[in-house]
Amino acid sequence: MKSEIIAIGSEMLTPFRQDTNSLAVTEKLNGLGITVAFKTIVGDRRKDLVNAIRTALGRVDVLIITGGLGPTEDDLTREAVAETLNLTLRRDATLVAALHVRVASWRMPMPPNNQKQADLLEGATVLPNAHGSAPGQWLDTIYEGYRKLIVLLPGPPRECIPMFDDECLPRLREVAPPRAIAVRTLKAAMIPESQADSLLAPIYTTYTDVETTILAHTGDIQLTLQCAKPTAEAAQARVDELASKIEETLGDYLYSSQDESLEQIVLYYLGLKQATLAVAESCTGGMISERLTSVPGASRSFLGGAIVYSNELKNSLAGVPAETLTLYGAVSPEVAKALAEGIRRRTGAALGLGVTGIAGPTGGTESKPVGLVHFAICDAQGTEAVERTLHGDRQCIREWASQQALDMVRRRLM
Amino acid sequence: MKSEIIAIGSEMLTPFRQDTNSLAVTEKLNGLGITVAFKTIVGDRRKDLVNAIRTALGRVDVLIITGGLGPTEDDLTREAVAETLNLTLRRDATLVAALHVRVASWRMPMPPNNQKQADLLEGATVLPNAHGSAPGQWLDTIYEGYRKLIVLLPGPPRECIPMFDDECLPRLREVAPPRAIAVRTLKAAMIPESQADSLLAPIYTTYTDVETTILAHTGDIQLTLQCAKPTAEAAQARVDELASKIEETLGDYLYSSQDESLEQIVLYYLGLKQATLAVAESCTGGMISERLTSVPGASRSFLGGAIVYSNELKNSLAGVPAETLTLYGAVSPEVAKALAEGIRRRTGAALGLGVTGIAGPTGGTESKPVGLVHFAICDAQGTEAVERTLHGDRQCIREWASQQALDMVRRRLM
Repeated sequence: MKSEIIAIGSEMLTPFRQDTNSLAVTEKLNGLGITVAFKTIVGDRRKDLVNAIRTALGRVDVLIITGGLGPTEDDLTREAVAETLNLTLRRDATLVAALHVRVASWRMPMPPNNQKQADLLEGATVLPNAHGSAPGQWLDTIYEGYRKLIVLLPGPPRECIPMFDDECLPRLREVAPPRAIAVRTLKAAMIPESQADSLLAPIYTTYTDVETTILAHTGDIQLTLQCAKPTAEAAQARVDELASKIEETLGDYLYSSQDESLEQIVLYYLGLKQATLAVAESCTGGMISERLTSVPGASRSFLGGAIVYSNELKNSLAGVPAETLTLYGAVSPEVAKALAEGIRRRTGAALGLGVTGIAGPTGGTESKPVGLVHFAICDAQGTEAVERTLHGDRQCIREWASQQALDMVRRRLM
Repeated sequence: MKSEIIAIGSEMLTPFRQDTNSLAVTEKLNGLGITVAFKTIVGDRRKDLVNAIRTALGRVDVLIITGGLGPTEDDLTREAVAETLNLTLRRDATLVAALHVRVASWRMPMPPNNQKQADLLEGATVLPNAHGSAPGQWLDTIYEGYRKLIVLLPGPPRECIPMFDDECLPRLREVAPPRAIAVRTLKAAMIPESQADSLLAPIYTTYTDVETTILAHTGDIQLTLQCAKPTAEAAQARVDELASKIEETLGDYLYSSQDESLEQIVLYYLGLKQATLAVAESCTGGMISERLTSVPGASRSFLGGAIVYSNELKNSLAGVPAETLTLYGAVSPEVAKALAEGIRRRTGAALGLGVTGIAGPTGGTESKPVGLVHFAICDAQGTEAVERTLHGDRQCIREWASQQALDMVRRRLM
C-alpha cells in the first residue's frame, strides 16, 4: 500500500518553515506497512491544491493531507478535495453547535467564518479534534475506478499528531494489508562512498525485497536497510541476513550495527575497557571534545583536554617541547605525537589523542597544503601516528578530521 | 514565474531525515522574484521519479531537482529526467577524465560505477561541482510546447548550495523578470523571542511593504527584512529605514546588522582591540572553542583553552585550586571565576572565559538543577560572574550556554 502526505500552507514554502508533521506520520504509516512514496508541500492557492490532490490520487492508495482546515480565508483544503472528487460540502449542524460551545467557553462571540470548519465532505466521517476547533475528516471513496483513502488532518502538530494516533491509526490498521516493516541502520567510518558501494552493491542488489539506502557525510557512511513482509519475523530475518553480509564485507570499517553515532561507540568501548580519554586539538578546535560531550554520561570516560590553537598553548597546556615545534613545525607527525603523549601525561588518561593540521582556507604551503592533518593516539603500549590529506572547505576538513580522530580511538580500543 | 523543488532520496521519506536544501534554494529563488509553488520529496524509485518530474513540468516553469546524482545504483535522477523528456544520455569524455583525476588524487583506483556521474543529458550544460565529484546539469528545453528550465543539483548541502549560488543564480537572473529585492539580517543575543516580538511588532507591522521574519534559536534571534521594489535603491532605503528603528529598539542586545555570527563578532572585536582570548569549558565541552575556530583566521585572537570535564582537569589544566572545588562544588560561581582566571593566567591571554554547569539529563540536585550554568569572564580589570538557569535538553542547554558565554565576551569588549 502506497501513501502520499500533502502538507498545505504557504509558510512551508518560505525559507523559514518546514513541514514536520510528516516525520511522525511517516513513522506510524511505516509501522503499519504503508510506504510513503511521495511528500508534497503546497501553498494556500486553491488551484495548486486541486493539482496536488489530483496528482496524489493518481499515484497512491492512501492520501494524508495536513493543514488548511482552519477558519480563515486561506484555509481551502475541504473545498479543494470537494472540487477534485466532485463532491458536495454540507455544513453539519452538530459540528456548528460544537463550535458555538467551544467559542462560548472563551467568552467571545463566534466570527461567522468559523462555521466553515463544520463543512463536511459528502460521505466523510468526522474525526474529533481533542486539541483544537477544526475537526478532521476520513473519506473512503472511489476515484477513477480505484479505492482511495483520504484523510484530512489539522496543521498544528499538537492537533495533527494526536488525531492521527487516536482516529486514523485504528482505521488504517483495519484496511492495511497485514505487513510489518523491519529497519536497520549500519554505520562505517573513513571508507569512501564509491568504494563502499562497489563492495556492497553486488550484495544488496540481490536483496530486491530489502530497500537499501546509502548516505555519506564527511567520513561517515550510513546504510539503512528496510524490508516489508507479512510478519515482523520474516521482515527482520531478511534485514538481519543482509546486515550480516554487509558487516562481513565492511569488516572493521563498520562501527555500528544499531544506528549509534561514532562518539557513542567510542564512549561505549572506553566504558567497556574502563579506560579514560583526553584530547589535544589544534585544527579541530574543540570539535572532537564537543562530539564526545554531546553524549549524556560522557564524563565517565572522557576527562577533557586542551584546545591548543597557538604554539604557546601546545607547549604550555599540552606539554609539546618548544624545540619539537621549532624543529618540525606545528603541523607534523612529531607534534601530533607530542600532543597525544603530553595530554595523556598531564591528565593521567589511559589514552591521549593529538590532532594538528591546516583547516584553511589560508595557511597552506606547497609542502604542507590546506587539508593536511596529522593525528596521533597513544596509550601504555605506545604511540601511533597517521597522516591524512582531507578535502573540502574549512568546515568539511574539520569534520573529516574529527571523524578520523574518533575512528583512531575506536580502532585502538577494538 | 513559478518553480518547484523536487528533493530526491529515499532517506527523506523516512521519519529521520528532512530535505533542507530547499530552504536555502527557496530564499534565493524568492530573491529573483521566482515563487516556489510546490515542493516534492520522492524516493530513489525510477518510476516515482519520472512521475514527480512529469507532474512538476506540467505545473511550473522552473524545476530544481536536488539529489540522485551520485555514483551508486540508486542514483537515478539523470536517467529519470532522460526518460521523462525522451532525451538520450551521453557519457562525456571530459567529465570522465576529470573524475579519474579526482579519484587519482586520493591514490585509489576508480570504481567503474563512478563513471555514470559523467552521463550528460542531451542539450544540457555542465554545472561544475567545486565541492564534490557529481557535476550538476542545466537544461533549457521545451516540454509539451512550453519553455522549461530544469536544473539538476547534487544532494549534499555543501555541494548543492554553492553550485546553486555560483552556477544557477547568474543563469536564472538572466531569465527572471526584472525586480529588485533588498534583504538585511539583524541578530540579537540572549533576548527572549516574545520580548523581542512585543518590542518590535508595533514597528515592523507598519512597514507593510517589508516582509519581516523572526527566527529564534537557543539565545539567538535573527530578524530578516526583505523588500521588493522596481529599483534596488528604493528597496534598500525601505529596509534600511526599518533596520535603523529596530537597531535603536534592541539596543545592546543587537550584535550584528549584517548577518555576521556571534563568534565572528567576538573575533572582530578581539581583533579591533588586539586582545586575545582563552577559554576553560566544562559543560559546553568544546562547543565555545568549536564555534570560535569555525571562523577562518580565528587563530589571530583565539589562543585555545581547556576542556575540563573532570575535577582533576579543572585543577591540573585550568588551575582551579582543589579546595575551591571541594568547598563550593564544581558548579559554582567560585569555580567559574577560578576557571576564567586560571586559564587566563596559564595562557597569557588578555581575556579568560570559564563555564561550568549541569547539561543533564542526569546530575541535577534540588539546589543545583539540570540547566544551572555559571559563567565568568576576566581581564586585567577584574572578574565578572553570571548565573543562568537554562531550559531544554542536553544539546539545547549546551547551545544556550555557549551563546551566553560568547555574548559575555562581546559585552566585555564593547
